[in-house]
Amino acid sequence: VTVLDQLIKDFSRLPGIGNKSAARLVYYLLKADPKLSEKLSENILKLKKCIRPCAVCGNYTENELCGICSDSSRDKSLLCIVEQSQDLAVIESVNEYNGVYHVLGGCISPLDGMGPEQLGIPALLKRLDKESLREIIIATNPTVEGDTTALYLLKVLKEKNIRITRLASGLPVGGDLEYAGKLTLVRSLKGRIEYNL
Amino acid sequence: VTVLDQLIKDFSRLPGIGNKSAARLVYYLLKADPKLSEKLSENILKLKKCIRPCAVCGNYTENELCGICSDSSRDKSLLCIVEQSQDLAVIESVNEYNGVYHVLGGCISPLDGMGPEQLGIPALLKRLDKESLREIIIATNPTVEGDTTALYLLKVLKEKNIRITRLASGLPVGGDLEYAGKLTLVRSLKGRIEYNL
Repeated sequence: VTVLDQLIKDFSRLPGIGNKSAARLVYYLLKADPKLSEKLSENILKLKKCIRPCAVCGNYTENELCGICSDSSRDKSLLCIVEQSQDLAVIESVNEYNGVYHVLGGCISPLDGMGPEQLGIPALLKRLDKESLREIIIATNPTVEGDTTALYLLKVLKEKNIRITRLASGLPVGGDLEYAGKLTLVRSLKGRIEYNL
Repeated sequence: VTVLDQLIKDFSRLPGIGNKSAARLVYYLLKADPKLSEKLSENILKLKKCIRPCAVCGNYTENELCGICSDSSRDKSLLCIVEQSQDLAVIESVNEYNGVYHVLGGCISPLDGMGPEQLGIPALLKRLDKESLREIIIATNPTVEGDTTALYLLKVLKEKNIRITRLASGLPVGGDLEYAGKLTLVRSLKGRIEYNL
């Protein structure tokens, strides 16, 4: 097996990359500037060495604390709970939220052996004891597992006497009623918003 | 900029990988077995160092000659001319061809500065002088540039007095007349095949 075939195999182990795309990537690298290969190779190694979870929120960072937890301009009384670091990155990208986060690292899924312990929910509760929050936004995915996790969080967070909200579910902007999923339509009806006339 | 952001940027420079796919790859690597990252990183570097063009046909190889040129069981009197190494790999994958190849490294495209010199066609002619061929198959892509290249090759190869063929163009197997491109239909009509009754 040549390096070429081996690298195609390695690339095709990544999500969303089949054999054909992997081959395309490898042939592209062969023709591209060697600097691209060098940077890729170097940063892939660095990634595993330098990136670790933030000691407070669990977000990926190169330091002890992530950029958000160590930013004094963020509103520390507003906490958003997400499943994954990438969800945090998506929320950050819309520039609409100025609070802090907590990254669970997954959602409750008994079949995969993911329970409250594995998600660090006990640690989250301890974190909340030390902070004075005015609101917790539950931003798990609108999936069966995400909703289960949200319900569980609601149950354990209720006694803290903090305002708890969750992200609205409904029609995607630019979407079409005709093509909306049934459950999406049900949620957008149940969560309908009053016009203030 | 963290390594994480930098690696997302590096990945998104690869073909067919946008920002979102790049982020997905990076977050996948963060959670995956470190061995995958190590192998990827290592093989990307190795690729550029170990892979070079075969001295005879131009196919990518780790040695002086590629596996096909150095394989004594291949029919050296049958030559298939392709644009790229990946075209060669596709033809090999169907196990239907037992001849040898010549890789042009592209196709004639004056706007991109690709002429017969850049494609090594003079070198190809020299190679042919040394070999006794019974057939040359032109397997450039059925695109404007590929067809131009095929016509040019036909012109310079004609005087060698060797049988010259080209890959058939027509309806893709499993395809639908209704959805076939007009030019594809024209070609499949012109190249129609007689039933031997």
